[in-house]
Amino acid sequence: MARQRSGRHTSVAESRERVLKALKSLGLRVVEYLEKGEFPQLEIPSRTTSNIEYDSKLRQYVLGPRKLVRTARNIKHLRPMAQLLWTAMFASRLIRERKTSTLRDAFYNALGFGVDFEDQQESDETVTELETLVGTVREDFNIYPEERSSVFGALVIEYTVPGYEGKRLDLTTIPDGAMIGPATTTAEFVRCDAEQVFVVEKGAIYQRFLEEGVSQKHKAIIVHTAGQAPRATRRFIRRLNQELNLPVYIFTDGDPWGMHIASVLIFGSALAAHVRELNIPDAVWAGLWASDIERYKLPSMRFNDEDARRVAELERDPRYVSDPWRREIANFKRLQKKAELEALSRYGLEYIVTDYLPEKLAEVSK
Amino acid sequence: MARQRSGRHTSVAESRERVLKALKSLGLRVVEYLEKGEFPQLEIPSRTTSNIEYDSKLRQYVLGPRKLVRTARNIKHLRPMAQLLWTAMFASRLIRERKTSTLRDAFYNALGFGVDFEDQQESDETVTELETLVGTVREDFNIYPEERSSVFGALVIEYTVPGYEGKRLDLTTIPDGAMIGPATTTAEFVRCDAEQVFVVEKGAIYQRFLEEGVSQKHKAIIVHTAGQAPRATRRFIRRLNQELNLPVYIFTDGDPWGMHIASVLIFGSALAAHVRELNIPDAVWAGLWASDIERYKLPSMRFNDEDARRVAELERDPRYVSDPWRREIANFKRLQKKAELEALSRYGLEYIVTDYLPEKLAEVSK
Repeated sequence: MARQRSGRHTSVAESRERVLKALKSLGLRVVEYLEKGEFPQLEIPSRTTSNIEYDSKLRQYVLGPRKLVRTARNIKHLRPMAQLLWTAMFASRLIRERKTSTLRDAFYNALGFGVDFEDQQESDETVTELETLVGTVREDFNIYPEERSSVFGALVIEYTVPGYEGKRLDLTTIPDGAMIGPATTTAEFVRCDAEQVFVVEKGAIYQRFLEEGVSQKHKAIIVHTAGQAPRATRRFIRRLNQELNLPVYIFTDGDPWGMHIASVLIFGSALAAHVRELNIPDAVWAGLWASDIERYKLPSMRFNDEDARRVAELERDPRYVSDPWRREIANFKRLQKKAELEALSRYGLEYIVTDYLPEKLAEVSK
Repeated sequence: MARQRSGRHTSVAESRERVLKALKSLGLRVVEYLEKGEFPQLEIPSRTTSNIEYDSKLRQYVLGPRKLVRTARNIKHLRPMAQLLWTAMFASRLIRERKTSTLRDAFYNALGFGVDFEDQQESDETVTELETLVGTVREDFNIYPEERSSVFGALVIEYTVPGYEGKRLDLTTIPDGAMIGPATTTAEFVRCDAEQVFVVEKGAIYQRFLEEGVSQKHKAIIVHTAGQAPRATRRFIRRLNQELNLPVYIFTDGDPWGMHIASVLIFGSALAAHVRELNIPDAVWAGLWASDIERYKLPSMRFNDEDARRVAELERDPRYVSDPWRREIANFKRLQKKAELEALSRYGLEYIVTDYLPEKLAEVSK
């Protein structure tokens, strides 16, 4: 049965309006100070490590209560304040003109405008500061990353980008999968015949799932993150989960890096503690686990120093306190080995689909 | 007017048959030796640097006449010969079963089959050896890279992959562009209303071109290589050029690395000297040139040691003997500066489309 949108969701157009309003109110605040003959000042949540907390109720990292005050009274604050206001102006122009941009474009645009950024890092930092103030991700300012993930499955989307308003695409009509670019990210979901979402880290496994008909056999939407998922993709998967009530299963390489890709999708990252609505707390990490290396007798590689260090780091991370995380960290420490998803190919290319996938789904659904 | 396929082209199905035939004849050669009671032997073109030559007529790197003989009489040759024959078997199975794979999958599959590869590098090497023997790229054995480029424009393709035979896709219906994955790579071109191809290195510029309607205004197909173009993409662009007679213009960053991305597209790479039909000798490198940095007063960065070394290397390269290459190498050496395509954003996001693009096209068409 086709799933319809669940109603409790903000539409793409509404979210655009909300961001525009926030940017406008930021400008108005500055204007009001000036009209009263006062120095403008802005309160910005602090993003220092000591102000980042793990919220176990929200199940994600959030910023603590500390704020920093930026005031035009202080000559040292003038430059970052001007940079921030220019960036807000640039963001508002992008949204109103319905153009997208990248962090690099924003930097060069500022240079041409005569806004003094030392380097791109300083301009990127200002974009993050604007995210903090508005409480949303830069994709909402139409500033997109270059990397692209892709998606395939029984989902019909309706575009909202200029020139394509109201046009629909059935994602099953593109055998290579559709890229999750700006148009897909801002599309509305109009019809879904899938019942779950499989998220895979590796392109080879994505392609295997497509070719073996996993989408039809398991009524699944398949998302390829291409390594650490770009934030636009994290939010796209979150929308599949929350708007369409689809359970999400994540498949990564069996190493500390793959485990962390899954954990960032589920719990969010410390770097993005200043924004919400990116993580998917109900998603399930379904493998490769360290224990799968033994269970499936997979070709594996010994941990190098970096792998061992990473596991020790993750062991102290507040996101890794419950199973399967805690258990698999213990297994990694004992085994000192890692394996890639492709290692399952030792039993033939189809094995991951015919054997591993159904066994894993049965196990995590227990 | 719509361009039709030009006729002198081998269809995707024909090319598949040709490769299968070559693989079969490789196996038959071995069987014949065995039936005669002789040790099987194979002649393989040598890929050592001293056997790689630049063919100025073909305008690409090719292998010289040297061959190495691999014979089962020599016990040291037995292992690589068995590896090669297994790889040929794996390739033939992929083609017949119409499945795709990656280099990594091939390695793990070999392990499961009991074929002894030291590591993935050794198995990759064997795939390259098979390419050399058959004279074609591994994509023809259905072994694809993970990276994906993308394409947008007035082109209708018809898929040949299982489940999609005969299904068509109009590339203008996907506002984010279509990924150049296995299905797109093996699709036939059935209708084209474009008159030229713009190839861009950067995702941000690709997106800019799409949003500013470059495809309609210039009747252009736009290809995003995402850095150094994967070989599947190089061949896809070559097909646009040769089957549809579309001129190809390449836009890269203004640095030695961007210049080399353009040159590999046009002249081919030394690493791929053992295969043909990958390069696009008539494509034109249309910028960013070193001279554009001065002409457009672009924000630029000073060369680091690596940039300077790279330019010195390219100066000795036989592909860089004529203009614009020679001239721009001289300009890079004089300026000791580099600039990114996005640097044109200093004049506004649209500038690259409204001013730079038409100026450049007029210049290179003189």
